[in-house]
Amino acid sequence: MIEALLFDTFGTVVDWRTSLIRQFESFGRENGLAADWTALVDDWRAEYQPGMDAVRSGKRPWTSLEQLHRESLDMLLPRHGLNALSDAQRRQLVLSWHSLDPWPDAVAGLRRLKQKYIIGTLSNGGVRLLTDMAKYAGLPWDVILCADVFRHYKPDPSVYLGAVELLDTAPGNIMLVAAHNYDLAAARKHGMKTAFVARPAEYGSRQSKDFKAESDWEFVVQDFEELAAKLNA
Amino acid sequence: MIEALLFDTFGTVVDWRTSLIRQFESFGRENGLAADWTALVDDWRAEYQPGMDAVRSGKRPWTSLEQLHRESLDMLLPRHGLNALSDAQRRQLVLSWHSLDPWPDAVAGLRRLKQKYIIGTLSNGGVRLLTDMAKYAGLPWDVILCADVFRHYKPDPSVYLGAVELLDTAPGNIMLVAAHNYDLAAARKHGMKTAFVARPAEYGSRQSKDFKAESDWEFVVQDFEELAAKLNA
Repeated sequence: MIEALLFDTFGTVVDWRTSLIRQFESFGRENGLAADWTALVDDWRAEYQPGMDAVRSGKRPWTSLEQLHRESLDMLLPRHGLNALSDAQRRQLVLSWHSLDPWPDAVAGLRRLKQKYIIGTLSNGGVRLLTDMAKYAGLPWDVILCADVFRHYKPDPSVYLGAVELLDTAPGNIMLVAAHNYDLAAARKHGMKTAFVARPAEYGSRQSKDFKAESDWEFVVQDFEELAAKLNA
Repeated sequence: MIEALLFDTFGTVVDWRTSLIRQFESFGRENGLAADWTALVDDWRAEYQPGMDAVRSGKRPWTSLEQLHRESLDMLLPRHGLNALSDAQRRQLVLSWHSLDPWPDAVAGLRRLKQKYIIGTLSNGGVRLLTDMAKYAGLPWDVILCADVFRHYKPDPSVYLGAVELLDTAPGNIMLVAAHNYDLAAARKHGMKTAFVARPAEYGSRQSKDFKAESDWEFVVQDFEELAAKLNA
């Protein structure tokens, strides 16, 4: 008896890569700056897991994704010939993560699923980032659950178990929807149901994994519309 | 520069008393039970603050409102000649708090405000209760912030300051909207803006306070439509 569907967001719901490249190219034009914006986006995202790993391992205390984004951007800009960017310009680039376009099926699928289930995020992004993103992209979340509520990053058990506790039900009544096998494996370990959605274009030419389901997840779908259909929503 | 409006919910957004009386009367008819349902509702709500006070004072560890509701119901039923209620019936009564009708102006006002601001809860209810309530009543929240996220009840500073931290802005960019002066006083103490909305019928004939604003809150309005108009939403 599924009561709630929780969604990983970056890559699963929104196409962060295309959205950021578009915003950065526009930023370059507006500011008369030339750079390989695609490479900057890809390099920035490559710092995503290492940044969180320092928190996950306990090497550093809880640090928000917003702060990690800023630190890795500051580290990367010199390599991309962009070290002259002002503080305001850097903040603008960090805020780009708050305005990401959904995959074409996402909003329609979520609207269907919302009629029958609680739908929410379970993301490593923060509450403000996810709230801004939902307003920008029209994502009709019922509830926003994410890393900074629990002060841990996925796949730390606190995130999954914390969501279960706040939704006040059994883990088996909640389904995690994600484009990443590691996330689903963690959710299953804690008793949640799982749905894999293929997003093979997430990382562009750098994509090296998650082309397909790597376990017998309860659902394996091409997009959210197929998930809605399979869940009779 | 207001970025987000956070709303107390019980009494401010929803008319818990009329909704519960209606549900209890229906419950009585369905189960062939006679009782003074209005008195049960009023007595139950009278246990609301004392129940939370035990947690606020540290006399007992964090306990969800759901659990406090059940304990106070169990305590009251014998006095109302209803001690024979089954566990399932008691659970049904506790769940009544998840299906409360909004005040007539609430949904229209929230929809207007949502176009321009982040709108969310800041309630002593739990995430699940508030999520169910939003789906039942059509409350278009962007974000649900509440006691069980912070494991403290208002007016504990953790709730207001925790919301400010998760919304990643200055306290002065957030406005609390409430029908209760004590809640607004706490919000102001922590730097938040304040709006008082009069809900003089909240407690029926037992209402003893909060008939009007008791301080110079930034806004004092009759309903959410007036608030939306004053905030140019």
